[in-house]
Amino acid sequence: MTPFPAYVPPDFTRPDLAAAPPVRVAEAPGSGVLPAGFHATSNYPEYVHLGGGRWLLASGSRMDAVLVLDGDMLRVVEPRLVRRGDRVVVGRTENGEEGIYVHTTGFDAPAGAGGDKFTFRSRGTRESPFSRSYEELYDILRHDRDHGHIVWVLGPAVAFDRDSRAAMAGLIGGGYCHALLAGNALATHDLEAALFHTGLGQDIYTQALVAGGHYHHLDVINEVLRHGSLERAIAELGIRDGIIRACLEHRVPVVLAGSIRDDGPLPDVITDSRQAQDAMRAHARRATTVIALATQLHAIAVGNMTPSYRVLDDGTVRPVYFYIVDMSEFGADKLANRGSGQARAILTNVQDFMVNLWNNLKG
Amino acid sequence: MTPFPAYVPPDFTRPDLAAAPPVRVAEAPGSGVLPAGFHATSNYPEYVHLGGGRWLLASGSRMDAVLVLDGDMLRVVEPRLVRRGDRVVVGRTENGEEGIYVHTTGFDAPAGAGGDKFTFRSRGTRESPFSRSYEELYDILRHDRDHGHIVWVLGPAVAFDRDSRAAMAGLIGGGYCHALLAGNALATHDLEAALFHTGLGQDIYTQALVAGGHYHHLDVINEVLRHGSLERAIAELGIRDGIIRACLEHRVPVVLAGSIRDDGPLPDVITDSRQAQDAMRAHARRATTVIALATQLHAIAVGNMTPSYRVLDDGTVRPVYFYIVDMSEFGADKLANRGSGQARAILTNVQDFMVNLWNNLKG
Amino acid sequence: MTPFPAYVPPDFTRPDLAAAPPVRVAEAPGSGVLPAGFHATSNYPEYVHLGGGRWLLASGSRMDAVLVLDGDMLRVVEPRLVRRGDRVVVGRTENGEEGIYVHTTGFDAPAGAGGDKFTFRSRGTRESPFSRSYEELYDILRHDRDHGHIVWVLGPAVAFDRDSRAAMAGLIGGGYCHALLAGNALATHDLEAALFHTGLGQDIYTQALVAGGHYHHLDVINEVLRHGSLERAIAELGIRDGIIRACLEHRVPVVLAGSIRDDGPLPDVITDSRQAQDAMRAHARRATTVIALATQLHAIAVGNMTPSYRVLDDGTVRPVYFYIVDMSEFGADKLANRGSGQARAILTNVQDFMVNLWNNLKG
Amino acid sequence: MTPFPAYVPPDFTRPDLAAAPPVRVAEAPGSGVLPAGFHATSNYPEYVHLGGGRWLLASGSRMDAVLVLDGDMLRVVEPRLVRRGDRVVVGRTENGEEGIYVHTTGFDAPAGAGGDKFTFRSRGTRESPFSRSYEELYDILRHDRDHGHIVWVLGPAVAFDRDSRAAMAGLIGGGYCHALLAGNALATHDLEAALFHTGLGQDIYTQALVAGGHYHHLDVINEVLRHGSLERAIAELGIRDGIIRACLEHRVPVVLAGSIRDDGPLPDVITDSRQAQDAMRAHARRATTVIALATQLHAIAVGNMTPSYRVLDDGTVRPVYFYIVDMSEFGADKLANRGSGQARAILTNVQDFMVNLWNNLKG
Repeated sequence: MTPFPAYVPPDFTRPDLAAAPPVRVAEAPGSGVLPAGFHATSNYPEYVHLGGGRWLLASGSRMDAVLVLDGDMLRVVEPRLVRRGDRVVVGRTENGEEGIYVHTTGFDAPAGAGGDKFTFRSRGTRESPFSRSYEELYDILRHDRDHGHIVWVLGPAVAFDRDSRAAMAGLIGGGYCHALLAGNALATHDLEAALFHTGLGQDIYTQALVAGGHYHHLDVINEVLRHGSLERAIAELGIRDGIIRACLEHRVPVVLAGSIRDDGPLPDVITDSRQAQDAMRAHARRATTVIALATQLHAIAVGNMTPSYRVLDDGTVRPVYFYIVDMSEFGADKLANRGSGQARAILTNVQDFMVNLWNNLKG
Repeated sequence: MTPFPAYVPPDFTRPDLAAAPPVRVAEAPGSGVLPAGFHATSNYPEYVHLGGGRWLLASGSRMDAVLVLDGDMLRVVEPRLVRRGDRVVVGRTENGEEGIYVHTTGFDAPAGAGGDKFTFRSRGTRESPFSRSYEELYDILRHDRDHGHIVWVLGPAVAFDRDSRAAMAGLIGGGYCHALLAGNALATHDLEAALFHTGLGQDIYTQALVAGGHYHHLDVINEVLRHGSLERAIAELGIRDGIIRACLEHRVPVVLAGSIRDDGPLPDVITDSRQAQDAMRAHARRATTVIALATQLHAIAVGNMTPSYRVLDDGTVRPVYFYIVDMSEFGADKLANRGSGQARAILTNVQDFMVNLWNNLKG
Repeated sequence: MTPFPAYVPPDFTRPDLAAAPPVRVAEAPGSGVLPAGFHATSNYPEYVHLGGGRWLLASGSRMDAVLVLDGDMLRVVEPRLVRRGDRVVVGRTENGEEGIYVHTTGFDAPAGAGGDKFTFRSRGTRESPFSRSYEELYDILRHDRDHGHIVWVLGPAVAFDRDSRAAMAGLIGGGYCHALLAGNALATHDLEAALFHTGLGQDIYTQALVAGGHYHHLDVINEVLRHGSLERAIAELGIRDGIIRACLEHRVPVVLAGSIRDDGPLPDVITDSRQAQDAMRAHARRATTVIALATQLHAIAVGNMTPSYRVLDDGTVRPVYFYIVDMSEFGADKLANRGSGQARAILTNVQDFMVNLWNNLKG
Repeated sequence: MTPFPAYVPPDFTRPDLAAAPPVRVAEAPGSGVLPAGFHATSNYPEYVHLGGGRWLLASGSRMDAVLVLDGDMLRVVEPRLVRRGDRVVVGRTENGEEGIYVHTTGFDAPAGAGGDKFTFRSRGTRESPFSRSYEELYDILRHDRDHGHIVWVLGPAVAFDRDSRAAMAGLIGGGYCHALLAGNALATHDLEAALFHTGLGQDIYTQALVAGGHYHHLDVINEVLRHGSLERAIAELGIRDGIIRACLEHRVPVVLAGSIRDDGPLPDVITDSRQAQDAMRAHARRATTVIALATQLHAIAVGNMTPSYRVLDDGTVRPVYFYIVDMSEFGADKLANRGSGQARAILTNVQDFMVNLWNNLKG
């Protein structure tokens, strides 16, 4: 039993779609330059009409990419990765009239009651009930642990508290994390917790500000640089706990993307933003569930590149879940306003979220 | 074993205190009118010098009240409750020089290391680690369940989610609530959940907006008005779950204070703000722990009237804990900025807070 | 020229409305108790069918009230003000099928383009552009200054800054305020500013925390109580500036509603929440524009009781504008989630809002 | 007349400082690797003792860098830019006992009254009065326009509103901006406003969501890539307004730092975070005033690298002002919690801030 709805493809025998012309393509005039009228993708399933009623589904779309037609294959390509001469789909409509159909309702439940002219609480806020959201999430994670690809996107706050840090390590050890996307700070403060029991100099349990604690993250970075990599530093310094160590132990890939806010950075950090995007995108393509916590920068970046569906190897289409956990409506709304409308927000402190999750899944 | 520090009274043999003059009093010129130079209390322990080295401790202070000397008894009285002729303590210093001593360090641990010119994270935020805060809170609640007076101050959001509402009812049944202070909305939506499984028309589990749901709270209020009281309505409508019902079952007093935002209100609501303050203050005086969730109005009101200490029947002095649980630093800071400096903030969603608390205490 | 759109009434010759039955009424079984199936109003124009194609428009609706039919007059009455035997409209549909029609589109512009399956920025946030919102507001205020009824709802923060306090006083003097709704704190801190140049002890210009400043608001309250009223205190203490003084000078009515958070309160404060609601509602009924700043409690209370339209003496129907100015999306969304959907949010600091407004209107 | 306080250097004849040993240095064991016990700088003035009472002041410090002694020159160097063999200052005390003195009070006013055990409003919030903050800022900007180096750090929201965008362009034209630090989004949406009058598809004046508007920023990026640079695109597309164009016209350097959130990016964006930091640091070193608006990422990055003082060519030492303008206390507190304690927060909407600033300075 899967915990998600079946996919209902479009009915291409519908008169308007049956009448659709074949899609048009134009060659990219240069590498990284798009032809006029290029079609930009959403994260919904996107189909193009090859003619004769043959529609092709992109195997996993994303926001603000383009479609490149390679013979019978439809690739979703970031504009900067388009090569001169690539055959780029053109057309800015979505209803088939130019041979492009964006299918927004593939996973919809049959329509509910609704219809009041007036309702309270039409917008999700911190006062929305999340009891079911949690239970659904547990079901999804239990399923995807064995049959999916769970991607975590973590801000440093997860490592600032003893129990949430331990919970995340537990989830990794329990098989609930297939890739970890984060920044320099998450890794640094996770090691700081291992070596000093602090986060930016504050004890991760007692909240005490430790004397000299503002040196801890700098000492951590210097130590790792001295050893040459996170892997060697963790081995040689005898680090036995934490998030990064759990990833290494369980061979979970970690992508650390650099930013202008970084101290150091650690040697494992990818400092070029385009290379970092490519490394992150490799996991976003495969994701079946994404959980983004306590980081606006990384959450929006990954939100931009994650499809709302995935075509599995056996051809079935399933939804990709994207959870954003944040303290403020602004964070969640920002994701929605940048187009990641499928994001499900859980408004709470990430520490509690982590601890609850692990308490419920570890059983 | 108590989970809190011992109280260290001031050393009145210290030269500056030994030299303190007796305190001065002046008669109130009218009822509700204070004499010039009146002393306003804080929520710290306040002592007045009667002369000859005899210092009197108010048995539980509060913000912005005055001290009335009644023979040898020192009463903490809200200005509007002062009667003409009451002997009001005057003097605006706090160091003994006018016979008034405010003792801010009675529960302090011996001084820590500290002393860096520079630290990170000097301010509490959502990124502060709360692992120990939770554990301390569990210890305090386990102790105060049997040996204290736990006062809850609740906003309606607690009733908007199935699991947090059940957790609160569980805590009441488990003996962890000796008084409940709230408003019209908490009671209304708690009954709405019992009768309709919604909060303001939204299902408390599925988040679905129910057709006609914006009538639910009005129907609830009308039903209770028809029955004449919450108690009768709950009995006669056969309500079997929820927060208010748990209070009735376990004879936990409920104070519902009215506000201009109320529909109805329910017949049990105290609509005069001064009478409501008096009813709330009766519990604030006895409180050993206060937990205020998801309500700025009530949290600040109760914060204003709650001492930071209490003199127990056997004469020992213990701290009064005040927890504020809120999603935003602004809420917690506002309490601090209004003078309730002893408030401990836990920044999270109140639903998670409630569920965690009950999971840990019910065991 | 009016700065607002013309009202387009419903087309009652439309087949579904032409076929509508006459509305049903039922007698209230007790005072303050509603008959089963009562119809609750929204703040949109609401019509009831008397039969024979005669539809009656309530002259100004509000959230969560009921309709009482008094001969040919349709009164919008708060449930608690309903008298036993009042003929209350029953029916919970809004499309005419029970003789009740809620008209949500009376002021709509002809439909725009729209129709994309996907858009960014569908939700209003702090990043929304407000240039035109300001210009529209200036036009509305210039119009309503002479031809409307502008109601201000103020939180204390307006008085905490020298320039915003002066701007509000300027707007009152300039005729841009026909009623002021606020609480005890606004009046107290406005007088504190006049007497001590502070707000809760902080200098309203330099931000300095003044020694002994935490006594200021208590001294203010005590002084006013000693004089017996705000009016007498302002006259006898020689207060020459500020918001309350401007209201007295220009005979602008002030309603101060009490709350459980109040110190004092001042003698002019209405401490019973139902009486306060009645006094506020008298102004909400007449309002053509409401501006609510920096107060969730009062903003939501007034939002609940304000119509989205008003029938003028000459029978024309015009929109009632409701502006909410707040720093957080949560505040504005909360208003929307409580049903005041017509509220227009301007997300900014109220100080800047006030200063900008006055700079633009005083010219 | 300068609008800032005179600098009072430390009194090195004070016994504890007179007794200070010479500072110790250690050679960096590798490039980018620090010797054990390295001293990390704050953004306060930092002095090292060369012996014999000769103290050397770093000409402009920053957070989390190190001090390299080059003969008689004291360089402040980011750890990753340290070369093998560099003579790095070691020692983790700040009071002179290891020959290092951090001077935190150089610009302090003589101590004020203070001393109450209890005050309200000890923390800055949205309710703090900002009247004087604005006036001081105007004075500083008028001074630094001709005698300083004003650095702006801008998030994209500044370009999302017609009036704030025009105000920023006005400030640049008026000489109030000597360098602009921003990201890909600011430049993209500024050009989007020029070409389409939208920001992410929303009209920057009317708030209307324009049909097809979600293509605008992609079209902008594609156009600029086609032209090869912002400069050529602006010239060849005939763009006549906006922030970037004003910078080009007035030869104000623009540093655009890349991030993983970027679409495109524009060809002018520096995608390597270390190169971007270097380019930003060149301006932070010279800054006399920094104003950071509506961007946490860039604000904290620049906050980390900006000194709190600067030694001018004539040897005088002046404060460097750092303003952070944001809607939430969290943003401002985060900067403080990351060590940029000198940051002055103005809590408001950046649109209003910009418009007010320009209205007051353009006069």
